[in-house]
Amino acid sequence: MHSLSGSHYIDRLTRNLARLIRVNRVVLSARTRHQAVEIVETPEFGRMLFIDNRVQLSEADEYIYHEMLVHPAMLSHPEPRSVLIIGGGDGGALREVVKHGTVRRVVLVELDGEVIEICRKHLGSVSAGAFDDPRVEVVVGDGREYVASSPEKFDVIILDLVDPYGQASRLYTYEFYLECKRLLGGGGVIVTHAQSPYLLGRYFASIFRTMASAFRYARAYGSWIPSFGLYWMFVVASDAVDPAEVDEEEVERRFRERGLSTRHYWPKMHRAMFTLPKDVYEALQRSDVEISTDENPVSVDI
Amino acid sequence: MHSLSGSHYIDRLTRNLARLIRVNRVVLSARTRHQAVEIVETPEFGRMLFIDNRVQLSEADEYIYHEMLVHPAMLSHPEPRSVLIIGGGDGGALREVVKHGTVRRVVLVELDGEVIEICRKHLGSVSAGAFDDPRVEVVVGDGREYVASSPEKFDVIILDLVDPYGQASRLYTYEFYLECKRLLGGGGVIVTHAQSPYLLGRYFASIFRTMASAFRYARAYGSWIPSFGLYWMFVVASDAVDPAEVDEEEVERRFRERGLSTRHYWPKMHRAMFTLPKDVYEALQRSDVEISTDENPVSVDI
Amino acid sequence: MHSLSGSHYIDRLTRNLARLIRVNRVVLSARTRHQAVEIVETPEFGRMLFIDNRVQLSEADEYIYHEMLVHPAMLSHPEPRSVLIIGGGDGGALREVVKHGTVRRVVLVELDGEVIEICRKHLGSVSAGAFDDPRVEVVVGDGREYVASSPEKFDVIILDLVDPYGQASRLYTYEFYLECKRLLGGGGVIVTHAQSPYLLGRYFASIFRTMASAFRYARAYGSWIPSFGLYWMFVVASDAVDPAEVDEEEVERRFRERGLSTRHYWPKMHRAMFTLPKDVYEALQRSDVEISTDENPVSVDI
Amino acid sequence: MHSLSGSHYIDRLTRNLARLIRVNRVVLSARTRHQAVEIVETPEFGRMLFIDNRVQLSEADEYIYHEMLVHPAMLSHPEPRSVLIIGGGDGGALREVVKHGTVRRVVLVELDGEVIEICRKHLGSVSAGAFDDPRVEVVVGDGREYVASSPEKFDVIILDLVDPYGQASRLYTYEFYLECKRLLGGGGVIVTHAQSPYLLGRYFASIFRTMASAFRYARAYGSWIPSFGLYWMFVVASDAVDPAEVDEEEVERRFRERGLSTRHYWPKMHRAMFTLPKDVYEALQRSDVEISTDENPVSVDI
Repeated sequence: MHSLSGSHYIDRLTRNLARLIRVNRVVLSARTRHQAVEIVETPEFGRMLFIDNRVQLSEADEYIYHEMLVHPAMLSHPEPRSVLIIGGGDGGALREVVKHGTVRRVVLVELDGEVIEICRKHLGSVSAGAFDDPRVEVVVGDGREYVASSPEKFDVIILDLVDPYGQASRLYTYEFYLECKRLLGGGGVIVTHAQSPYLLGRYFASIFRTMASAFRYARAYGSWIPSFGLYWMFVVASDAVDPAEVDEEEVERRFRERGLSTRHYWPKMHRAMFTLPKDVYEALQRSDVEISTDENPVSVDI
Repeated sequence: MHSLSGSHYIDRLTRNLARLIRVNRVVLSARTRHQAVEIVETPEFGRMLFIDNRVQLSEADEYIYHEMLVHPAMLSHPEPRSVLIIGGGDGGALREVVKHGTVRRVVLVELDGEVIEICRKHLGSVSAGAFDDPRVEVVVGDGREYVASSPEKFDVIILDLVDPYGQASRLYTYEFYLECKRLLGGGGVIVTHAQSPYLLGRYFASIFRTMASAFRYARAYGSWIPSFGLYWMFVVASDAVDPAEVDEEEVERRFRERGLSTRHYWPKMHRAMFTLPKDVYEALQRSDVEISTDENPVSVDI
Repeated sequence: MHSLSGSHYIDRLTRNLARLIRVNRVVLSARTRHQAVEIVETPEFGRMLFIDNRVQLSEADEYIYHEMLVHPAMLSHPEPRSVLIIGGGDGGALREVVKHGTVRRVVLVELDGEVIEICRKHLGSVSAGAFDDPRVEVVVGDGREYVASSPEKFDVIILDLVDPYGQASRLYTYEFYLECKRLLGGGGVIVTHAQSPYLLGRYFASIFRTMASAFRYARAYGSWIPSFGLYWMFVVASDAVDPAEVDEEEVERRFRERGLSTRHYWPKMHRAMFTLPKDVYEALQRSDVEISTDENPVSVDI
Repeated sequence: MHSLSGSHYIDRLTRNLARLIRVNRVVLSARTRHQAVEIVETPEFGRMLFIDNRVQLSEADEYIYHEMLVHPAMLSHPEPRSVLIIGGGDGGALREVVKHGTVRRVVLVELDGEVIEICRKHLGSVSAGAFDDPRVEVVVGDGREYVASSPEKFDVIILDLVDPYGQASRLYTYEFYLECKRLLGGGGVIVTHAQSPYLLGRYFASIFRTMASAFRYARAYGSWIPSFGLYWMFVVASDAVDPAEVDEEEVERRFRERGLSTRHYWPKMHRAMFTLPKDVYEALQRSDVEISTDENPVSVDI
């Protein structure tokens, strides 16, 4: 049907911009202890997961998001054996992490245990069995507290969090990144998704600069994720390695030796993707970018 | 939640006007042999039934529509024993008809048998068991053909059809009303719902004038039906009785003797409701109102 | 164009219901000292006035609202000579009031002087020159304060206010109605618009019952106002006369002698319009209806 | 204001996806001889131009579109002296072209002369005076006919057309590209914008493959254009040069020597931008991609 009639999801992107996404079915609409969780089935993007009215993923393109979140960080590390995922209750990041043959242990710390159950039930293709991998430990609890108190070290930390608002803002601050740094123990690589340039550019710049303040190397890259309605950025950082300077052949070799198979990310684009357009690059250098701190956490407000 | 986010049904009222109705759940979205049928659950109106993207009823206020459709016609007749309903597959009109203690036989002719099944299953409170009443016969078939070929006479005919578009337009024409008249046999009362004044006033006037051309008495009345987003009109007609002139005490007496119980319509408003505002009244008298005929059927076009 | 594309006004009716109204032109979008004022030109309703995102009137059907607000009250009074309008900065109520040949003086008290200027400039057909009538005095100021301090008495008071939210809630309370009563001096008639049944039924019932608590007679009636997207109610009250019991011939006589000419309201419907449907009537009698008081003012919240 | 109220433009992206863009003002809504033209002012993107309900550009980010359309092609040519622009009535591509110091002559062929006038008047910053450049000749007429009959040769051809639907589809076919090739005379570079991957991926692949069939080298690249709501692709092609293989230092040198100044495109990204993600790359290789021909032109249909 061509006409704009029937059920649609209204997805607010900014105060002045929203999307109408046609919906075939509301699979689930629930309130967990922590948040509002909805899964709707759409002709455009398959099933979509919304938390607190914000899109988290869609079946159609979650591979873009999860591959872009996980592999650049994992491949920047010469041999990632232990990985910490904060958030990521849908299991998509986990699915990509366990593909790396080097990995011996993954801890996934998710605040909302109900989200894990909901996604395993209604979005099973996202985790694709990864929660059953014997290398995986799931901790239901607060990521910030876990990081603060963990005696364990990790090679890679993946921050797959809801957007920085409310309590989640505490997992985007300078102090939190320093706590993560302690767990990386001098080596190690950390990555977070980082909002969108232009429309949400203030938040992207803030996350980048906060990461860049906490780590020796910080690099931004992004990809178009159709179901988000926005180009979406990531920031990968490390004290030990500059992810943008890993030799292309080395990335190819690691990719091959770890037995990876992907759909969107591939080693060919590893270095190219760090080359930002001029305006996006310059927006990161501006002197008025706010560093997010525990005292003044940057919080998206739409 | 205050913000306009999440799932909504987009309901087109006119070319230049639509509604966004929040949806909690899409109960059903199917295509029958005849039409697209959707049932959605809404916080504002409970479950709503849409056919071809047009609202047919909601749990919250279908009693208004069905009481207003059925009782003025039934109470205008001194003793309705046999009733013919064309359309009305949801069973709501049927439910109101069988309340009248005088009724011995009801024939309901619905084109789309699947609609009856869907409504019995997902909107059970609408028919409320009326389909199981032994006085009721259901015919799945074309209403126009049924009327043309029926040897049986009826005291009251209730036209509870989808809006006049496509094939349904054939059940709003002068010729069709004449065929109905044959079944009423000189006495009898007929009623149809009749679109909305102002925004759809052209269609309302046309239905009224077409009815008024076919019958000696034709009277318009209406009610606000929140889930329609529009004030909705009805036209009741007869060769034997002027429905607006039935004595209030007589209406009261019939209402009581037939054991009726209602929520919206009551005998107190029977005569008052026929008093139209000046502009609505005058719109019906205009010389340019089109009579709907088989050759030139009036058809809503939004 | 049939498709739902292009500029539209999103008009929230309730938390779970909104409208999309096609817009040809944004005539004005301003913030006065008191409120946000917008005028848009629409193909469906002509120019529409929104205050704080709530529709106030449209060129297409403001005559319905203003005639229904003004004439039932004015015609219930045997000889209204002085009239007080609180609000009504668009001048539409004023236009209807000055039609009554008996009127010698009208005071219009509007909080927002800019609204008067904006409407005279961009919605000139609404006041239609009434502000230039020598019988009219305009006071820019707070209606509640005016009523509290006025030494003058009035035959009719017309409350043409924005909806009860924020400061305007103070002009819908029991105490305010008592202050108005003082100005009516034992005789006199007062009228207010009163929200919508069903969807906003809680507010309608509250306004009715608050008026009914303050005055000996209070009567509700309503009309479908297409540009509001809602059936809209009014409450007319008096200590001296029951507006629903004025003889129809007397209404006719007053209408004629005062030289009135109208488009929607006419004396024929004067008594009929007070006959409410059963559910609407009963909703006004419920024991849980809240009386709006200065201490606990009822306030719409969508 | 946080709430989704007030004027919005409904922008259809696909059959199942639309955007609501807040509008402050409708600057212009006109029908030229050829198409419907609207300019609206938005808080998110400044003024936006829509043709036949499709977004053409916004003040906020047209520099992204125009720089990405023009400079990769222009810089792939060692010394572009004559340039042909088909479409581009807004003047944005022209503005970028005349920045190149090598340029001696630009012909802009726009079907709709009224669009040029409208944009010069209401979107003056887009052309920024370029129409007054003495090197520029404007031809109001059909681009296809101009190309077919022009005796003149050009170094660069820039196709800045409306999307491929209706008559415009004729300017996206294999035959048209061959006609352009004749004007490029063996050397020369041609570029077109090319829809979006994923959601409109079928059209993007078709344009790419059609260009690749007509020219020896064809390269795709893209950028996120926020006001389009989509990542947007371009295809640059040539028989003489592979745009993706121009040496980065050479691009830098040409950029500098021609006196260019840009905001989004810069030589640093020239080669990187041709590296597509794996899925986007593979979608271009699929055997079922349709070549657009005069007989079977590919046409977007939403």
